[in-house]
Amino acid sequence: MATSLRNHVKGKVKEIVPGPAVCEVEIETSAGTLSSVITARSLQELGLKVGDEVRAVVKSTEVGIEKP
Amino acid sequence: MATSLRNHVKGKVKEIVPGPAVCEVEIETSAGTLSSVITARSLQELGLKVGDEVRAVVKSTEVGIEKP
Amino acid sequence: MATSLRNHVKGKVKEIVPGPAVCEVEIETSAGTLSSVITARSLQELGLKVGDEVRAVVKSTEVGIEKP
Amino acid sequence: MATSLRNHVKGKVKEIVPGPAVCEVEIETSAGTLSSVITARSLQELGLKVGDEVRAVVKSTEVGIEKP
Amino acid sequence: MATSLRNHVKGKVKEIVPGPAVCEVEIETSAGTLSSVITARSLQELGLKVGDEVRAVVKSTEVGIEKP
Amino acid sequence: MATSLRNHVKGKVKEIVPGPAVCEVEIETSAGTLSSVITARSLQELGLKVGDEVRAVVKSTEVGIEKP
Repeated sequence: MATSLRNHVKGKVKEIVPGPAVCEVEIETSAGTLSSVITARSLQELGLKVGDEVRAVVKSTEVGIEKP
Repeated sequence: MATSLRNHVKGKVKEIVPGPAVCEVEIETSAGTLSSVITARSLQELGLKVGDEVRAVVKSTEVGIEKP
Repeated sequence: MATSLRNHVKGKVKEIVPGPAVCEVEIETSAGTLSSVITARSLQELGLKVGDEVRAVVKSTEVGIEKP
Repeated sequence: MATSLRNHVKGKVKEIVPGPAVCEVEIETSAGTLSSVITARSLQELGLKVGDEVRAVVKSTEVGIEKP
Repeated sequence: MATSLRNHVKGKVKEIVPGPAVCEVEIETSAGTLSSVITARSLQELGLKVGDEVRAVVKSTEVGIEKP
Repeated sequence: MATSLRNHVKGKVKEIVPGPAVCEVEIETSAGTLSSVITARSLQELGLKVGDEVRAVVKSTEVGIEKP
């Protein structure tokens, strides 16, 4: 399934902060730690656990830019 | 200014696709190319050009997860 | 590739409003017309054209609720 | 009140996953089940319960596209 | 129509940066200028023009926090 | 650090609805109360508490427009 979402960053699940409706998942990537908030159901359905190989996915419109 | 936005990825502006209201900016990072859509005004005010050192910034709620 | 994104709605490309950096794509679904804004590059790379079978994809955090 | 948000999908509340700050609400629509994450306060103020007629609302910029 | 979107800020259209698919609309509010990106179609359908009384609307999940 | 994010609204933390993974923070601004959902970790790292001077920050693409 090809997708219009342009940002896919490989990494490993580093830590999971659980919650009843949503949870935070930290992903260790070659560009540092990324933080994702997904539903608790998706966490369960994906069977995510620390050490899993995953990809962080982000739509381009959600990415801002900072300049020193 | 400390921020609640948890994702900041360092990189270099690789390419800019201009547009009258918004533009796409590609950023080369150690985790691959990231794509950002920002307003044309921000592009101008930041004076962004290819080669600039920047950071891609994303709110955690906007980051999904894919698992092979 | 399993994903945490929970909303996938099948439909057909109904209309494309082109733009240099981003474009709007209207998708006819069984729940009515959905509108998506994606980058012009994604439009090109996906080779999208009117009549194509596609799926609209949305992260749960981006969906609000209205009640009459 | 006219709105720029272009996606409004009718449906019925199917299930609610409660949480202290945010909750997930599943909505049964003619295009399948949609998942929304809203604040617990909005859930309370809207008085949402299973079976309620509602509309899922999404801004076009938040909708991506997948193509088989 | 009651909504789960919790942020509605009154203001006046200050400036419109047109574009073929999306446009930027600046809104003068009592808390300063707010910037919105909406589809060109929504701009047209709402018949927005400088001076119009409007409300900026934002979902809570899209609002970050900065602290000096 | 200059940013492409164009919306920064000054205010004071009015109330915090805690949660294990994310929390809601209400901010009193000159344009009324704004609601933000951030991760519990960011709440902790920013050391946010009621009465703190903060800024709500929103990307332009996340701002819609309503017209009476």
